[in-house]
Amino acid sequence: MYIEKINSPQDVKALNTEEMKQLAQEMRTVLIKKLSIHGGHFGPNLGMAEAIIALHYVFNSPVDKFVFDVSHQSYCHKILTGRKDAFIFEDKYDDVSGYANPDESEHDFFNIGHTSTSVSLASGLAKARDLNGGKENVIAVIGDGSLSGGEALEGLDYAGEFDGNFIIVVNDNDMSIAENHGGLYKNLKLLRDTNGKAECNLFKAMGLDYVFVKDGNDIEQLISAFESVKDIDHPVVVHICTQKGKGYAPAEKDKENWHWCMPFDIETGRSKFEFDGESYDDITVNYLLDKMKNDKSVAVITSGTPTVAGFTKEKRDIAGKQFIDVGIAEEHAVALASGMAKNGAKPVYGVYSSFIQRTYDQISQDLCINSNPVTIIVFAATVFGMNDVTHLGIYDIAMLSNIPNLVYLAPTCKEEYLAMVEWSMSQRKYPVAIRVPGNGVVSNPNYKPIDFDNLNKYSVTKEGGKVAILGLGTFYQLGESVADEIKKQYGIDATVVNPVYITGTDKDLLAELAKTHDVVITLEDGILNGGFGEKIARFYGKSDVKVFNYGLKKEFLDRYDYNEVLAENHLTKEQICEDIKDFI
Amino acid sequence: MYIEKINSPQDVKALNTEEMKQLAQEMRTVLIKKLSIHGGHFGPNLGMAEAIIALHYVFNSPVDKFVFDVSHQSYCHKILTGRKDAFIFEDKYDDVSGYANPDESEHDFFNIGHTSTSVSLASGLAKARDLNGGKENVIAVIGDGSLSGGEALEGLDYAGEFDGNFIIVVNDNDMSIAENHGGLYKNLKLLRDTNGKAECNLFKAMGLDYVFVKDGNDIEQLISAFESVKDIDHPVVVHICTQKGKGYAPAEKDKENWHWCMPFDIETGRSKFEFDGESYDDITVNYLLDKMKNDKSVAVITSGTPTVAGFTKEKRDIAGKQFIDVGIAEEHAVALASGMAKNGAKPVYGVYSSFIQRTYDQISQDLCINSNPVTIIVFAATVFGMNDVTHLGIYDIAMLSNIPNLVYLAPTCKEEYLAMVEWSMSQRKYPVAIRVPGNGVVSNPNYKPIDFDNLNKYSVTKEGGKVAILGLGTFYQLGESVADEIKKQYGIDATVVNPVYITGTDKDLLAELAKTHDVVITLEDGILNGGFGEKIARFYGKSDVKVFNYGLKKEFLDRYDYNEVLAENHLTKEQICEDIKDFI
Repeated sequence: MYIEKINSPQDVKALNTEEMKQLAQEMRTVLIKKLSIHGGHFGPNLGMAEAIIALHYVFNSPVDKFVFDVSHQSYCHKILTGRKDAFIFEDKYDDVSGYANPDESEHDFFNIGHTSTSVSLASGLAKARDLNGGKENVIAVIGDGSLSGGEALEGLDYAGEFDGNFIIVVNDNDMSIAENHGGLYKNLKLLRDTNGKAECNLFKAMGLDYVFVKDGNDIEQLISAFESVKDIDHPVVVHICTQKGKGYAPAEKDKENWHWCMPFDIETGRSKFEFDGESYDDITVNYLLDKMKNDKSVAVITSGTPTVAGFTKEKRDIAGKQFIDVGIAEEHAVALASGMAKNGAKPVYGVYSSFIQRTYDQISQDLCINSNPVTIIVFAATVFGMNDVTHLGIYDIAMLSNIPNLVYLAPTCKEEYLAMVEWSMSQRKYPVAIRVPGNGVVSNPNYKPIDFDNLNKYSVTKEGGKVAILGLGTFYQLGESVADEIKKQYGIDATVVNPVYITGTDKDLLAELAKTHDVVITLEDGILNGGFGEKIARFYGKSDVKVFNYGLKKEFLDRYDYNEVLAENHLTKEQICEDIKDFI
Repeated sequence: MYIEKINSPQDVKALNTEEMKQLAQEMRTVLIKKLSIHGGHFGPNLGMAEAIIALHYVFNSPVDKFVFDVSHQSYCHKILTGRKDAFIFEDKYDDVSGYANPDESEHDFFNIGHTSTSVSLASGLAKARDLNGGKENVIAVIGDGSLSGGEALEGLDYAGEFDGNFIIVVNDNDMSIAENHGGLYKNLKLLRDTNGKAECNLFKAMGLDYVFVKDGNDIEQLISAFESVKDIDHPVVVHICTQKGKGYAPAEKDKENWHWCMPFDIETGRSKFEFDGESYDDITVNYLLDKMKNDKSVAVITSGTPTVAGFTKEKRDIAGKQFIDVGIAEEHAVALASGMAKNGAKPVYGVYSSFIQRTYDQISQDLCINSNPVTIIVFAATVFGMNDVTHLGIYDIAMLSNIPNLVYLAPTCKEEYLAMVEWSMSQRKYPVAIRVPGNGVVSNPNYKPIDFDNLNKYSVTKEGGKVAILGLGTFYQLGESVADEIKKQYGIDATVVNPVYITGTDKDLLAELAKTHDVVITLEDGILNGGFGEKIARFYGKSDVKVFNYGLKKEFLDRYDYNEVLAENHLTKEQICEDIKDFI
């Protein structure tokens, strides 16, 4: 076993080619085992084993600097840079994050988790090196669908004019999470088909030098290519063709489903995680497919994460031309949707909270200034969602809800969610975003749809006095339980309100509440700063009503236990009851 | 005169080539006159006269649909679509906006003002057409530096896979606002030099068909090219080479300074607007050039608007490699800066408030999660700045200040501004943004620098009681005048506070103020929603202190009189005094 003896990249340099090949197999074995138990990014890492060995063999990390795009393909880099134990020993699996992390190692330079950033970040390392007279190599590694993102393309364009050492390794595995989308991938295919010899070459057209590696899983070819560009005095792209999921048959065959995995059985490849409940993905895809059947102007857009709204391969095939995967290109997705709405279509853009951050300006300028009727469905917008620092779903209220003209809705149950989607797709006046609840699918058979056109009218769901609780979206049920606790502890019948609209203040209702309530509590599943509750506090600023805003602190959380986070932010019914004790 | 008879594109179709050439000259004459009196985008419009005539001659607007990028090159389109009077008659100059505007004409489809959006927006029109079985041509017009923006490149990549009619006219005038930056412009030059015949072709590499027009100011060549692509069944780029500023000698010669103009003397080309006061541009460029001289790791970054921080051509030459124009590529600019800071450089990114919107995710992910010491200087972040709906500077507080780890500072005078820049560039812990005051350069010789490392400590500049006024940044002086008015009207010595930090709440001070003050007033130069004042309201939510938040309503303003806007939002000292009357 070589892997056990690798404590730093220096140990890689001591191996011969055959030993490196063996090391690649060993890395695959530990990766497959760890991922079968722990889950994580599967295909991207299996495909990059040889390339990462070759990079560490040729270059001298951390003096030479690697920046991995998304960094979901950097597990092998972690193995080779002193972190192998976190892949070999089950009790140490959680010692490392799933992404690059400077706190773990001097071989990592950035926390990275969103796509398409490596070229730009690495170009900054290179520019600073040149200003300060350094000599090291700077290497960006990009691929796996990331090239289509605007930031990556801006970065390549900048790199094409850069006048010093800069090496961009394009890991071309012919895939994004699902199949690749975008015209540039036709050029990558042409380059693959011509052994890199086609004159028409995207990278050269961007002003970059170019080297082609036919088999990006062949250690010798890789070492030879990397040695040829080491210490180069200008920017160059090394285009390597790898096989996503290499070394595990089910993943080689079904690349999309093995991009990321839950714990699975190695023998059969079957997932150990059986989710048999109802999910908002299923609810959404079923609703939208039905809509599409009856209205050819309905179309669903994704930016490289097709299953976000439940559109598995099978469902995408049913949707046909009414399903549009633009590739990783969130900015384009929003502008496309705005244009479609303007010309009479009914576009629905499904996107994760963390990734909608990539399109603030398009939502403001392309969409909201133009008031086009687009429906955006925001998934994983919750403290209960992804918990890596780069994939949090707790900032979207602050980001979206302060953009004029947008109607941002917070459903509290399945029935309300569907009523909102229905309304949004039927109206032609507003850009609408809908925040999918983060606390699982709650059904409320007694839910009565309201006329959402009557903007910013909150729903009083339980009438009471003294204390009013505004429970937004995911936290509506918490609001109900707080009301029960208040009844239990203080004998007070609190009023419970479903605000419905994140983007508006129901001034009439708030003024009315002030007459019979001393305390107003707001609850929201996101950071408090820039959020919903602060608007309520502003409204009551001049009144005698006491306002208690509950939500999360403005901070970057990382791999947290949500119960701990909720407790730290006083988001339990007991804490809230205690907080208001002296005010009732 | 033909121009006087053009009431719709139909009237263009009745002209022969010679008459169209004459019309182009007439349009130039009225444009030069209007712009000499009114100011506006100069070079981009003069260069596009023939192309816009040819587009309207060949296509059938508004059934066929044009989308102009930035739409600062659409003045001639306005002339030909029923809006000529706004260019011919001085008393009607303000009847049209400086950008595309659907409220003005059925020939405009979007309000557009930011760059790089036309391909994506137009692709949406095309996709909706195909879903609904339409047959019209959809034409995006892009150029003038816009191609390097991430959204444009995402849009081209999508277009390369589109399977219906879609025509992209690339207006290649070899310029952005200043000279072009980015490797792709080398490819445009290669294409110009080879009459479009070079095999290496960015557009083909993106999957697009391609047509070259050598002289984009030649009506016949243009008509021939557009006729060849009319009703095409797949996406195609028509690359036309135009001369920016064509027809006005000073603009042909000095393209950068004639991109946009203030009123000028037609004979001499000299600006009639003489600004002889001190400006934050001058203060910034002088300070930074001095820094650069003594520290080679200092570098200034712009994304296609080099003069934003005072870096005219002459100053850029002095800065040399320490000045980086990345082209229109805001996302890349932030990531580049983060990378530079990580590797020991001291990057300063100068950007307008309206354009920083284009890089929310990069500020959050590439910069703030990584806590790299970048200095961002935010210009025109004020109600007193640009007043077109697409160029407002009133949203940046809501956008930036809710991102964790960022330190966003609001200086109140020149001395404080320079102290903040100095501190930001000397520390290595925080990403810092500084909001340049919008009320002109105020000097306060008595200003005493504080230790900004002591985060979120507000400065009490005048001690008093009963009423405390927190005047943020630009509105600090308004705060002082409100205090004077309160003294005059009510005989109360109000406390005046300079909050300094937009991103933090000074809880100790606020708690202290609560002991001796009944009313706290916040003043901020931006929308209230998601802003500074709401945090203060949240803090005091449970107390007896009454909080009055002043700022702007969340709305898209367009071509407003700022005095009217201030009055509508109760932002005069008299209104504020009146508002608090019953509370003191």
